[in-house]
Amino acid sequence: MLLKKTVASIGALDARAMEEARDHQKNLIKPSGGLGMLEDVAIKIAGITGKLKPDLEKKAVIICAGDHGVVARKVSAADQEVTGQMVRGFLDGGAAINVLGRHAGARVTCVDMGMIGVVDDPRLKSYRLGPGTDDIASGPAMSRKQARAAVEAGIEVASMEIGEGVQLLATGDMGIGNTTPSAAILAAFTGFPVSLIIGKGTGVDRETMLRKKEVVEKALGLNKPDPRDGLDVLAKVGGFEIGAIAGVILAAAAARVPVVVDGFISGAGAMIARALAPDAVDFMLASHLSEEAGHKVMLTWLGISPLLQMNMRLGEGTGAALSFTLIDAALKIVREMATFDQAGVSDAGLR
Amino acid sequence: MLLKKTVASIGALDARAMEEARDHQKNLIKPSGGLGMLEDVAIKIAGITGKLKPDLEKKAVIICAGDHGVVARKVSAADQEVTGQMVRGFLDGGAAINVLGRHAGARVTCVDMGMIGVVDDPRLKSYRLGPGTDDIASGPAMSRKQARAAVEAGIEVASMEIGEGVQLLATGDMGIGNTTPSAAILAAFTGFPVSLIIGKGTGVDRETMLRKKEVVEKALGLNKPDPRDGLDVLAKVGGFEIGAIAGVILAAAAARVPVVVDGFISGAGAMIARALAPDAVDFMLASHLSEEAGHKVMLTWLGISPLLQMNMRLGEGTGAALSFTLIDAALKIVREMATFDQAGVSDAGLR
Repeated sequence: MLLKKTVASIGALDARAMEEARDHQKNLIKPSGGLGMLEDVAIKIAGITGKLKPDLEKKAVIICAGDHGVVARKVSAADQEVTGQMVRGFLDGGAAINVLGRHAGARVTCVDMGMIGVVDDPRLKSYRLGPGTDDIASGPAMSRKQARAAVEAGIEVASMEIGEGVQLLATGDMGIGNTTPSAAILAAFTGFPVSLIIGKGTGVDRETMLRKKEVVEKALGLNKPDPRDGLDVLAKVGGFEIGAIAGVILAAAAARVPVVVDGFISGAGAMIARALAPDAVDFMLASHLSEEAGHKVMLTWLGISPLLQMNMRLGEGTGAALSFTLIDAALKIVREMATFDQAGVSDAGLR
Repeated sequence: MLLKKTVASIGALDARAMEEARDHQKNLIKPSGGLGMLEDVAIKIAGITGKLKPDLEKKAVIICAGDHGVVARKVSAADQEVTGQMVRGFLDGGAAINVLGRHAGARVTCVDMGMIGVVDDPRLKSYRLGPGTDDIASGPAMSRKQARAAVEAGIEVASMEIGEGVQLLATGDMGIGNTTPSAAILAAFTGFPVSLIIGKGTGVDRETMLRKKEVVEKALGLNKPDPRDGLDVLAKVGGFEIGAIAGVILAAAAARVPVVVDGFISGAGAMIARALAPDAVDFMLASHLSEEAGHKVMLTWLGISPLLQMNMRLGEGTGAALSFTLIDAALKIVREMATFDQAGVSDAGLR
């Protein structure tokens, strides 16, 4: 019900506001198009918010955490206990996402979607759907009911943030092993050969990458996820936190709040969101091109261009938080730059 | 004398500090290398400053402005009077570089190296070497004496900034027509075919690009700049502001202050700086990959990788100012992130 209602609320970009934003860019004292993607971002945000000169001061990164049964198949370099340990790190403020969140003036909200162990901390929002998903190479990751619950948890959390005044959202993830279900989701939607989209995750060796490839192929062959059905793909080969990320994106789109999609795992969530609501992509911004092998294919399928290409592969929302400072810059350009008329600069040849 | 002394003061990167910085990155709670270029930047800055955890709070962008005789040959879309109008814009605070400078917490310093008209304003530093250079397609841009004076002016201005406590510098440029001498400098040092490195500047049409190509080829054939002699290249086919940018970079390198090189014109200045002092490149950071056609070749020749690729082609130092926020983020990571020991996170498989 919440999912259906949210999807139904997603509208189109505001074409008039975008046209105004395009005209405004041409009036500023610079060659037309000279600020490249900063101009594109400002125009898209005008279309999302309906405002020519928005100030998206209140920002949040929502980190969705979960564990993965498939880790039993040794597809990750790190131990599974690291998921919970890192979530404690987020709550204590010493992780990369905390540093980059503070740098961007964004708060960091953590959601437990189902880690193997319970982290008992009042600052952690709990929407636990179990002690990790089941092994996707043996059967579905979760039931269809759990898949819906995961997406609706993301919708709830994002709606609370938006209700508290947050104007710019980012998605983040934590879950040892989650590049494996993300690669499976990517392959399920695109049909791309699995061998070309398996990446090294936290840093696995060649042997493990080969094992990851076989596990993903087995999961797809066994579960046969239906690419026309986002909940089916999520249930068969996804993850609890990936579903929640999809929900965060849908809620943001429904509320016309720009949502910055982090790297490979957030991108898998974005694919689920697009499958559930195709227009949701209009409300997404891609933060960065990750080092993870399949990320470029993923962004191409989503139709969004990354702001940054810094060889990052950390997750947590770190690429998204870093791109917040660029988005702020793009909006300050719109709000603060002088026009040709105001500054008495000749515009001949520059518009 | 000042030039010779400055070049002689440029040392090597601090290998011990870089080793320490590399080790520190491995201790932070993330997969080793997971933050990509943010890690590389922090390690390089440790090598430049000799400090593991520097805080480069005080920042400045130095915009060097000058006019170009070659504009008489219709190589630019904009009128030459725009150089001075934009400099007034910088002083009034309404240009893109002012917005992005404020965003990054950087001050903007403007230097008149020789515009066609005099801008009478006490906030503008004047090192005028004439009312624009001479037409490089008819003879040298300037005398060798002027070339040296241009570089030494940049050294003086940067040294004053550093003397006032500036810890991170960026170069910027203003000068209608200055992609033409910059392309000539690039061709002179690399021997790259001129047709491949002619860009659209502020936005010229195909006909003008063809004219630019012919002008650059004529300038190179007529003046025969010697690529082993940086001052000769600058004098024959350069610009006053390009020489000053080279000087800013040399002064920064001599003082072990990281200097962020903006786009195509700043890159031409960086090429002159490297020709005068090859070790200067160790103290440079490349801000962004510009849309200007030859910029990739230029950065490859300099051996520096751009932090941003946002299709920008504005100059003024805008790419550099934008990258300041990424550099700040890289240094905050080093100063603020917890180590595996501090956070109680298992490092197995992650270092």
